[in-house]
Amino acid sequence: MAKQRGDLLIIGGSEDKESDEEQAILRQAARRALAKEGGHLVLLTVATMEPQQTAETYRKAFSRLGVHRLEVLDIRNRDQAYDPANVEKLSGAAVLFFSGGDQLRITSQMGGSPLLERIFALHEEGVPIVGTSAGAAAMSETMLIGGPGSAINGGPPPCLSSLAMAPGLGLLEGVIVDSHFSERGRFARLMGAVAQNPHNLGIGLDEDTAVLVRNNDEEFTVLGSGGVYVIDGLGIRYTSLSDMHTQGILTVHDARVHVLARDDRFSLKERRPLLPAT
Amino acid sequence: MAKQRGDLLIIGGSEDKESDEEQAILRQAARRALAKEGGHLVLLTVATMEPQQTAETYRKAFSRLGVHRLEVLDIRNRDQAYDPANVEKLSGAAVLFFSGGDQLRITSQMGGSPLLERIFALHEEGVPIVGTSAGAAAMSETMLIGGPGSAINGGPPPCLSSLAMAPGLGLLEGVIVDSHFSERGRFARLMGAVAQNPHNLGIGLDEDTAVLVRNNDEEFTVLGSGGVYVIDGLGIRYTSLSDMHTQGILTVHDARVHVLARDDRFSLKERRPLLPAT
Repeated sequence: MAKQRGDLLIIGGSEDKESDEEQAILRQAARRALAKEGGHLVLLTVATMEPQQTAETYRKAFSRLGVHRLEVLDIRNRDQAYDPANVEKLSGAAVLFFSGGDQLRITSQMGGSPLLERIFALHEEGVPIVGTSAGAAAMSETMLIGGPGSAINGGPPPCLSSLAMAPGLGLLEGVIVDSHFSERGRFARLMGAVAQNPHNLGIGLDEDTAVLVRNNDEEFTVLGSGGVYVIDGLGIRYTSLSDMHTQGILTVHDARVHVLARDDRFSLKERRPLLPAT
Repeated sequence: MAKQRGDLLIIGGSEDKESDEEQAILRQAARRALAKEGGHLVLLTVATMEPQQTAETYRKAFSRLGVHRLEVLDIRNRDQAYDPANVEKLSGAAVLFFSGGDQLRITSQMGGSPLLERIFALHEEGVPIVGTSAGAAAMSETMLIGGPGSAINGGPPPCLSSLAMAPGLGLLEGVIVDSHFSERGRFARLMGAVAQNPHNLGIGLDEDTAVLVRNNDEEFTVLGSGGVYVIDGLGIRYTSLSDMHTQGILTVHDARVHVLARDDRFSLKERRPLLPAT
């Protein structure tokens, strides 16, 4: 039997950390940690500037879910990502979990390092990887890093052709992931990212909402209490991207959008939402 | 020559009130007020609970743009909407301007009244009507009145099938207008409204952004600094609206979305964005 790549659990941030209900998103991570005998969950806090607080929060949340073997791997600089002792901490890991923070910290401190190579290898061998907020955004090959802020925060309007993007981890090909989606009014920003190269599907995740990517990345299922917004740009008939006002709002005609809710499934392979079982 | 219905200037709220630049949205209203000799601009403050402050703000803004004949018509209750003296104040009006506030105040205090009948008649005769924020939302036949708040304000996720809607003024047929669009993360809410009856185009307006509807409602042009989001639901292949979780996120497959910027044109008659002149 061929090896199967591990699942990806991509969370839009602010996932419920109190609940132990069956439908809680973190339960999916906990279940995978508990399924592997002697396995532990490795929490990667590289993205955050408050690693101790983040570690404490997740230690409590996972303890409530029965996961007591939690190892915090806090990479502060590139030296630490080259340290064999840190790489060794991944051995036997059942689940790898990237916390929120700043996605550029993840890639700038770990990109190209032996630690990240080991993470990729484990994932290919079947170890699931979880990322929330910045940890979710970093999953793409090219990731959104913000730049022109959402208008909600008093910044300029968001759909600028000068969107800030950077090379991501590339754990999931052919997508651009954005988190805190409705909460921070990021529709226009994700649309702008999709218009830059409609090869990529835009996946916008509300808070406390996730996609669970399974089956060698062929499809995902929606978890959590919010919505998932898939922007498919293949049908775009016109965009002003290369024409004009580089600082202005980006014109886009004929994008296709799917809104998905808990238990909905989407085929990444076919670029299509799946109809619910009847 | 057949009479032509007046233009509609539909503004997403928070329009620039300081600028006298050529591109300022309020200049479009001012220009129309000044074009009619002896005509005045009637400011309808029915929507707001702070009519004096609103009147003062617009008096200053329009004075800066050269409009000194501004009449404030402040309807507080239905009796006033039946008062012939108030109806008479509309005579000779060059422009009618609905301020922001609560769109339900506009329809509940004025719906079916002689004052509103007169407004419709004037519009049919060519008088332009402007509405901002609540005044914009009220333009549709069926209008969004919020209900489940945007997640940005800490409320539940917005894309509920139990969206709150109410009968609007019906000045523009076949559309649902939403204002403060990116700023309040209203994509999911407008999508939900469109899914209820895809006959209607959803038009989401960012703040300081407007559509100028011309030519007997056949087309509009975008004004202002933000984006305009047009959601066309005719292609929707599946929605969970009638199936399931009435309190949950609404699943929608295959909506079509256009993002438009300043000077972009859209044919309401053809339901298509127009390509820019080359």
